[in-house]
Amino acid sequence: MQKVAILGSTGSIGSSTLEVLDFLKDRFQIYGLSAHRNVEKLAAQIQKFNPRVAVIGDECEYSRLKARVRHSEVKLLVGMDGLCELSGDGEVDILVNATVGSAGLFPTLEAIRKGKKIAMANKETIVAFGSVLMQEVRKNGAQIIPVDSEHSAIYQCLARRNVQDIRRIVLTASGGPFFNSSREAMESASREEVLAHPVWKMGEKITVDSATLMNKGFEVIEAHFLFGIPLHKIDVLVHRQAMVHSIVEFEDGSMLAQMSTPDMRLPIQYALTFPERVPSTVTPCDLTKVGNLQFQEVDRDRFPCLSLGYRAVEKQGTAPAVLSAADEIVVRAFLNNMLSFKDIPFLLDKILEEYEPVPSPSLEQLVDEERWARGHVETLVDQWCSR
Amino acid sequence: MQKVAILGSTGSIGSSTLEVLDFLKDRFQIYGLSAHRNVEKLAAQIQKFNPRVAVIGDECEYSRLKARVRHSEVKLLVGMDGLCELSGDGEVDILVNATVGSAGLFPTLEAIRKGKKIAMANKETIVAFGSVLMQEVRKNGAQIIPVDSEHSAIYQCLARRNVQDIRRIVLTASGGPFFNSSREAMESASREEVLAHPVWKMGEKITVDSATLMNKGFEVIEAHFLFGIPLHKIDVLVHRQAMVHSIVEFEDGSMLAQMSTPDMRLPIQYALTFPERVPSTVTPCDLTKVGNLQFQEVDRDRFPCLSLGYRAVEKQGTAPAVLSAADEIVVRAFLNNMLSFKDIPFLLDKILEEYEPVPSPSLEQLVDEERWARGHVETLVDQWCSR
Repeated sequence: MQKVAILGSTGSIGSSTLEVLDFLKDRFQIYGLSAHRNVEKLAAQIQKFNPRVAVIGDECEYSRLKARVRHSEVKLLVGMDGLCELSGDGEVDILVNATVGSAGLFPTLEAIRKGKKIAMANKETIVAFGSVLMQEVRKNGAQIIPVDSEHSAIYQCLARRNVQDIRRIVLTASGGPFFNSSREAMESASREEVLAHPVWKMGEKITVDSATLMNKGFEVIEAHFLFGIPLHKIDVLVHRQAMVHSIVEFEDGSMLAQMSTPDMRLPIQYALTFPERVPSTVTPCDLTKVGNLQFQEVDRDRFPCLSLGYRAVEKQGTAPAVLSAADEIVVRAFLNNMLSFKDIPFLLDKILEEYEPVPSPSLEQLVDEERWARGHVETLVDQWCSR
Repeated sequence: MQKVAILGSTGSIGSSTLEVLDFLKDRFQIYGLSAHRNVEKLAAQIQKFNPRVAVIGDECEYSRLKARVRHSEVKLLVGMDGLCELSGDGEVDILVNATVGSAGLFPTLEAIRKGKKIAMANKETIVAFGSVLMQEVRKNGAQIIPVDSEHSAIYQCLARRNVQDIRRIVLTASGGPFFNSSREAMESASREEVLAHPVWKMGEKITVDSATLMNKGFEVIEAHFLFGIPLHKIDVLVHRQAMVHSIVEFEDGSMLAQMSTPDMRLPIQYALTFPERVPSTVTPCDLTKVGNLQFQEVDRDRFPCLSLGYRAVEKQGTAPAVLSAADEIVVRAFLNNMLSFKDIPFLLDKILEEYEPVPSPSLEQLVDEERWARGHVETLVDQWCSR
């Protein structure tokens, strides 16, 4: 019986993780849960799954949560200290990091330093701090198994193979809602159009990132850090059918593609049970109903954010962290109706272009620059809105 | 520098193997070659590649070969003894078995007992003697790496994974020249139509087996023995585009598919360099030009030979060996214009149906039954032709 802690259990990935754990309850025990501020949902999860520990990220919500679970024996923790305490808890075998944004850093680091297995759904943490995190992973014998469908696919295709055998990896992209739209339609896209993702139902921030393809740019960075694959060996192709989740092409020209019904419970379960495979609730894919599997190049002019991912890695040092932070702020401003859709790539490009990264940064420098970038970009957005 | 011996170097797979070895000449040395009776081609290969040993299978061709290579220092061997001497030669690191038919058995066994790595392109040997051969492989720490494109694909997808994690494997089939033909068109198919395979240019026997799908039936048996996968977990789907060479579906519903340009040099090279991957001459597959990837069920009524593969394994014991031997005789009779195309499945079905297999046979019993079947089927074909 392995004990699992989920950070961000009330979000989309967190909820799917609970479904998977519930289905596999003879293998896994739900030890800890956490939410940023969704007290109602977290209280309901505590009632249903009876974890030993629960963390509420936002201190102001502590009393309300406490009142809601007063009949439970759950141990309540608060804030970043609480998240780190849960992540480093000696009882926890697997940490599922399903938080959004760079708040995932310190709890992840805590788990890495305890040599734990981490099912990683928090992209921003890898993008921003990957260079330092992966060093810590190697030093501490920890294990990061990606939960992103694309990186899970690459992980499955690689299966401990030598990275030197790889000619390239191809991250597939659904293309988002605007893949076939004109530049004009994209420039005038409404918040609702942006949030209507054709394949995946996800949180709002990542849905916007999928519409700009910034998400795919981040995935390029993530693949670079996670697998130690040089940038020129990472390609992106749009695959609208969302059945092939990514492809590894080996030096000899042979390719392995991971395919399945698009369902996040699959990469979640894979990360939990790795290296084993066990039956899942995911609908098997009927190959005879496939028919059309297309792979198309991305129009980099209409989707400049994809190139930003590559450029951030090329600039090295603190550049990926600053791009990630900038995107968080800019997308939040878009979701708050302060920016138009076309402002997102424009501002991100400008920010990255003007930024002078710190080379070979320490973790502290990464954290400092990431924090600086938030303030800097907030100011920039304000100026932009009042121009 | 690894030393390689190729049995059947003048055939289609043998010639492709020489191309691969020539391209990778900084890694591999061509130590030995063999041909059944194609003296001209073998002599030319000896001149070009300068092997230390060459074997001519047919004793009657020895003097002719000797005369043709009298200026060479090659050591000439003859017949089955010669093949076994080369296969077991302490200098040989890798044996490529590219012979056709059950003549591959004893040389293979010799290499297995010396614990060698064997790149196996001889399907019949695995089909007929797989139950015993795989026991010997385990006992002697030998390694059989399949060269068939389908089994190479499965091997690449599995990559030392636990067979218990597998829900099923899907062997893909090109469908051969008659996949879209009516039953009537198939029944009156000419020798030329049968030999016009849409994708692969191969030897005549295997091309006929591809037209009846008996080849796919044999591949089911081969997969069963090679990978230790139970029959009910082995599926076949027709995939006309011949880009996905086979698929493994895991217990959780995730699938890995191996894809590449259809070119036998790829599985050959993979078997030679395994577990490494190195650049090849194979044209990379342009994913953006793919478009249509379809998988279709086989019409078992029009292609009864596929089911014969399953039935032979179900009957167990010596049944696969007898089916394999029967097919060799029946196909030869077809190629000699003694039988029509529709006679092939009819006779094979009848033979398998009436056959009482020896359960849990020893190697000797397998060899005896296989030999008995040849005589038995020859008589049967003669009777059939003079009916």
